[in-house]
Amino acid sequence: MRVTILVALVCIHAAAADAQTWNPPADSARCPSKWGAGDQRGAANHMKPDTVLRAARLIRTGQVFELGRRLEEGMPLQTTRTFELHTKRTAPLAGSNRRGSNEEIVLAEIGQVGTQFDTFAHQTIGDSLYNCFKLEEIATRNGFSKLGIENIGGLMTRGVLLDIAALKGVEMLPETYEITVADLQQALQRQQLTLQPGDAVILHTGWGRLWGKENDRYMRTNPGIDVAASEWLARQDPMLIGADTAPINVTPSPDSRLSNPVHQIALVVNGFFLLENLRLDELASQRAYEFALIVEPLKLVGATGSTVAPIAIR
Amino acid sequence: MRVTILVALVCIHAAAADAQTWNPPADSARCPSKWGAGDQRGAANHMKPDTVLRAARLIRTGQVFELGRRLEEGMPLQTTRTFELHTKRTAPLAGSNRRGSNEEIVLAEIGQVGTQFDTFAHQTIGDSLYNCFKLEEIATRNGFSKLGIENIGGLMTRGVLLDIAALKGVEMLPETYEITVADLQQALQRQQLTLQPGDAVILHTGWGRLWGKENDRYMRTNPGIDVAASEWLARQDPMLIGADTAPINVTPSPDSRLSNPVHQIALVVNGFFLLENLRLDELASQRAYEFALIVEPLKLVGATGSTVAPIAIR
Amino acid sequence: MRVTILVALVCIHAAAADAQTWNPPADSARCPSKWGAGDQRGAANHMKPDTVLRAARLIRTGQVFELGRRLEEGMPLQTTRTFELHTKRTAPLAGSNRRGSNEEIVLAEIGQVGTQFDTFAHQTIGDSLYNCFKLEEIATRNGFSKLGIENIGGLMTRGVLLDIAALKGVEMLPETYEITVADLQQALQRQQLTLQPGDAVILHTGWGRLWGKENDRYMRTNPGIDVAASEWLARQDPMLIGADTAPINVTPSPDSRLSNPVHQIALVVNGFFLLENLRLDELASQRAYEFALIVEPLKLVGATGSTVAPIAIR
Amino acid sequence: MRVTILVALVCIHAAAADAQTWNPPADSARCPSKWGAGDQRGAANHMKPDTVLRAARLIRTGQVFELGRRLEEGMPLQTTRTFELHTKRTAPLAGSNRRGSNEEIVLAEIGQVGTQFDTFAHQTIGDSLYNCFKLEEIATRNGFSKLGIENIGGLMTRGVLLDIAALKGVEMLPETYEITVADLQQALQRQQLTLQPGDAVILHTGWGRLWGKENDRYMRTNPGIDVAASEWLARQDPMLIGADTAPINVTPSPDSRLSNPVHQIALVVNGFFLLENLRLDELASQRAYEFALIVEPLKLVGATGSTVAPIAIR
Repeated sequence: MRVTILVALVCIHAAAADAQTWNPPADSARCPSKWGAGDQRGAANHMKPDTVLRAARLIRTGQVFELGRRLEEGMPLQTTRTFELHTKRTAPLAGSNRRGSNEEIVLAEIGQVGTQFDTFAHQTIGDSLYNCFKLEEIATRNGFSKLGIENIGGLMTRGVLLDIAALKGVEMLPETYEITVADLQQALQRQQLTLQPGDAVILHTGWGRLWGKENDRYMRTNPGIDVAASEWLARQDPMLIGADTAPINVTPSPDSRLSNPVHQIALVVNGFFLLENLRLDELASQRAYEFALIVEPLKLVGATGSTVAPIAIR
Repeated sequence: MRVTILVALVCIHAAAADAQTWNPPADSARCPSKWGAGDQRGAANHMKPDTVLRAARLIRTGQVFELGRRLEEGMPLQTTRTFELHTKRTAPLAGSNRRGSNEEIVLAEIGQVGTQFDTFAHQTIGDSLYNCFKLEEIATRNGFSKLGIENIGGLMTRGVLLDIAALKGVEMLPETYEITVADLQQALQRQQLTLQPGDAVILHTGWGRLWGKENDRYMRTNPGIDVAASEWLARQDPMLIGADTAPINVTPSPDSRLSNPVHQIALVVNGFFLLENLRLDELASQRAYEFALIVEPLKLVGATGSTVAPIAIR
Repeated sequence: MRVTILVALVCIHAAAADAQTWNPPADSARCPSKWGAGDQRGAANHMKPDTVLRAARLIRTGQVFELGRRLEEGMPLQTTRTFELHTKRTAPLAGSNRRGSNEEIVLAEIGQVGTQFDTFAHQTIGDSLYNCFKLEEIATRNGFSKLGIENIGGLMTRGVLLDIAALKGVEMLPETYEITVADLQQALQRQQLTLQPGDAVILHTGWGRLWGKENDRYMRTNPGIDVAASEWLARQDPMLIGADTAPINVTPSPDSRLSNPVHQIALVVNGFFLLENLRLDELASQRAYEFALIVEPLKLVGATGSTVAPIAIR
Repeated sequence: MRVTILVALVCIHAAAADAQTWNPPADSARCPSKWGAGDQRGAANHMKPDTVLRAARLIRTGQVFELGRRLEEGMPLQTTRTFELHTKRTAPLAGSNRRGSNEEIVLAEIGQVGTQFDTFAHQTIGDSLYNCFKLEEIATRNGFSKLGIENIGGLMTRGVLLDIAALKGVEMLPETYEITVADLQQALQRQQLTLQPGDAVILHTGWGRLWGKENDRYMRTNPGIDVAASEWLARQDPMLIGADTAPINVTPSPDSRLSNPVHQIALVVNGFFLLENLRLDELASQRAYEFALIVEPLKLVGATGSTVAPIAIR
């Protein structure tokens, strides 16, 4: 009997421990994607004329907000990433009109620096990607043969800013603050908005204030969502989640065993996009909570993402 | 007397010859720019709430046209330009969630390859640029300190497609055909449209059919506008001129002494932008002549331009 | 009975077929290397004072032969490899002495272009490298943590040119000619030389005549050694094998199932180096068969090889 | 009278001030070079069989000293210079022999990083280079059409280490210590050596101890020669001057108006080379004062220099 109780206690403990961590779903649980076997576009499939019209209707004043960061040498970069711009010599003057030409060579992980739009080639669960494409079958030295950013196209959709910092009455959430489902719901309530399928859900943490000022701190940790909130957001069927942080996920994850589960939940499991390093101070200070979001990823064939310069218009 | 006549004939001939070439205006004739001394944004100053609203009103069906070319190794490139994408090794799996990360290093004249948006740092008349900024004062090894693309911001304006190929009853204009002022006016008439200040004027030559198929030919020569038509267009006060060719200018210029005067007329003299290597086949075949054009140049600080993925929406 | 004979014939044929192909040896058959478990330097261990003195004694006239190719845009390159040199803008004149500085940015697989020295990180048998280091344990995004070129150091040793083209009475061996063990032995005999441990064995095929003239042909196929000759050479315990071809191995291998076995025999199994794309026309025409070879690989930490500019001196 | 004295005093002072600064010689005073009009190789013309033999005779024990620094991300770099090595994905296994291939893409000012060999395209006096080649006539976007490193070839010559640190009884000279002509002469005397035309003169300051340890400090200032000592060395007709510092010149120059005059005196005026960022600790500690120096610049067509991995052998 003692043995039985011991076993029971052990089992309960184990169950409790398991309940604390998150395990990526098995392939069979997530594939094929709801968009169909072989689909490479995930939530970009939300782009239909109605989506565009819905967003266009939100353009009432013509006010444009620039959400993209400047790409320059002093910007925060993940370790091992680079951004370099080398101005080439001016070409010799041509013609009787004495025309000189300038250009530059840029060397960068141009899919993954600055304000960036991540697509499905970017992340794996083990060797498996969105819609269960296999890494070794699609990765080459010069790009991914499936799931590259060129499949996405320009996106125009309704954007909703959830100002979590304002909800908490601060300018900047604490550095490892986990945004909860309750936070998201309260923000919606406070801002009198609801989410709709195909939305771009933009989270304002205030962490963006550190960009270009305290780059190491900006990159080292950050507030954000984790498993619960991102799974809840996934159930709202968004086109993308964006934030004024680099990894979107609270860093580090409260569960120290996990590495940025939000990236997997978004890009691998549910097939929607992440939009990182946004500049949201203006949107927040001007209480622009609902707007048309337009983002145009570069058509870098086989790339895992694109640096972008998105705009919000209301 | 014979001498006199001879001299007179020579003078008339010389005058005629002079009248056939184009000389860039002197600095005093073009500076300061109409937007003001020190202005760096030129026709981007047209971006006002009204411009956005005017464009938004043209979004009636939500139909989106992708105007950007795919960026890949087989695309046409000017000599000495490059585009390379190297997929990096997948990062070792991280966390109990076995998260793998992929990214790529891109090496390219990312301001001047593929579908590209040229800004004022790109061109000079001698050592002088738009608004008479001087090359040696603003060019550095790592970007231009003035007139870089980061000054422009996202653009949303009314776009007008002038289908010159259709006007001439062909799928593709002949390779060195010069589009005249009369052609532009007849196209507007045929399409029952007028130009307005701040418009994006998009010229369909049909030359884009060669992209990815006959790259050398695509790059070697092309139909397009020259001095007269671009000066006429400049007087319509556009935000930009775009086309489905690389240099916009008919190549070679009919005046063999000139090297792409349209680039100087647009970027140096009048301060509006050029949008090159557009994909216009769909817009043309679907007779989408009037639309909202949205283009988001990357904020590459100090760059002469940006590869872009613009969309047209109607 | 007929069945028995048939089976016997089939078995004999299969055995013969197996005997014609080459299978890389099992790890246990080649590891640890003769230089010791954990050794990363292979035949570079031959570099001892005696080796240097032996080579120095061959310097009798002071005549120097340049064996390295020019690195420039028109050179033959394997597909997906690149070489670009971009001259940067001259730095603004500094000081009262008006000093201007020039430099260039070079983008290249600088370990694997032009005249190149391959080291052990370059090749695998499956996931295993020289001395049974495992790929996943030593490969990172920014270099190999073991077996990188920085472990090698400058090499100065006796060089022996085996002029196989001259042996065959031609200027250039036929394009898929396999150099046999007999060829090597006859060349040594004809040239009255013997090989010694630690030698740099340089093979003149004449194929180098195509460099810069018929680059596609240079790269597509070439004469060279294959399994038998490289295994024989391996038994002579060389420091390296070099040739005036890109892959050293006859291309394609006579056994169509194999992909460049010489690379594995040299770099993975036996731990000596390969020196490719040498310029040997002068050495051959001047009958410089024995000389001091000096090669200085760049200390690119973690790289798989280095572009080099070796010299031969006699 | 007072006025006269004042004027005299002013004149004497001005003369004294002029005597303290250095002015680069006029073109007519230095061109054509002693090697002839149109010469591009300068002191590389010292490379003759006798030079090689003279150096070879110094190889008595076969001891090799590696003088090159490791090229890796943590090394000191001048601002705006870069060194990046990106390991590419392993190529899919090829053949029945399961051959995997690895390579890396390197992005760097490969002529001007790490242990580097500067040639004449690197420096100007105004718009004029060695042998009065003019910058605008020889500089292109993809290399210099004259004076590029490909003209130099491998160099093997007598090397002489002048241990100035030991002369002064220190491990490292003070950071802005100017090495004088007297220092050089006393070092030669102390070490019982004389200089010969065509020598590689290597200066040990001890500053190299900071490499990889205090990179900012290594780059910010350093001891070294200035005008007087370099002009004296120039009169000894060397092949090159090397040191364990980045700029060779004491930094800053004692004359605050000058910017690294040694670079101009060597590369522009006198046409000999500079070999920077050498690792000299071993040579110095082992008192290897006379040796064969062998340096093999990469044949980067049109480049201003080359990263190198030189060796000294005695």
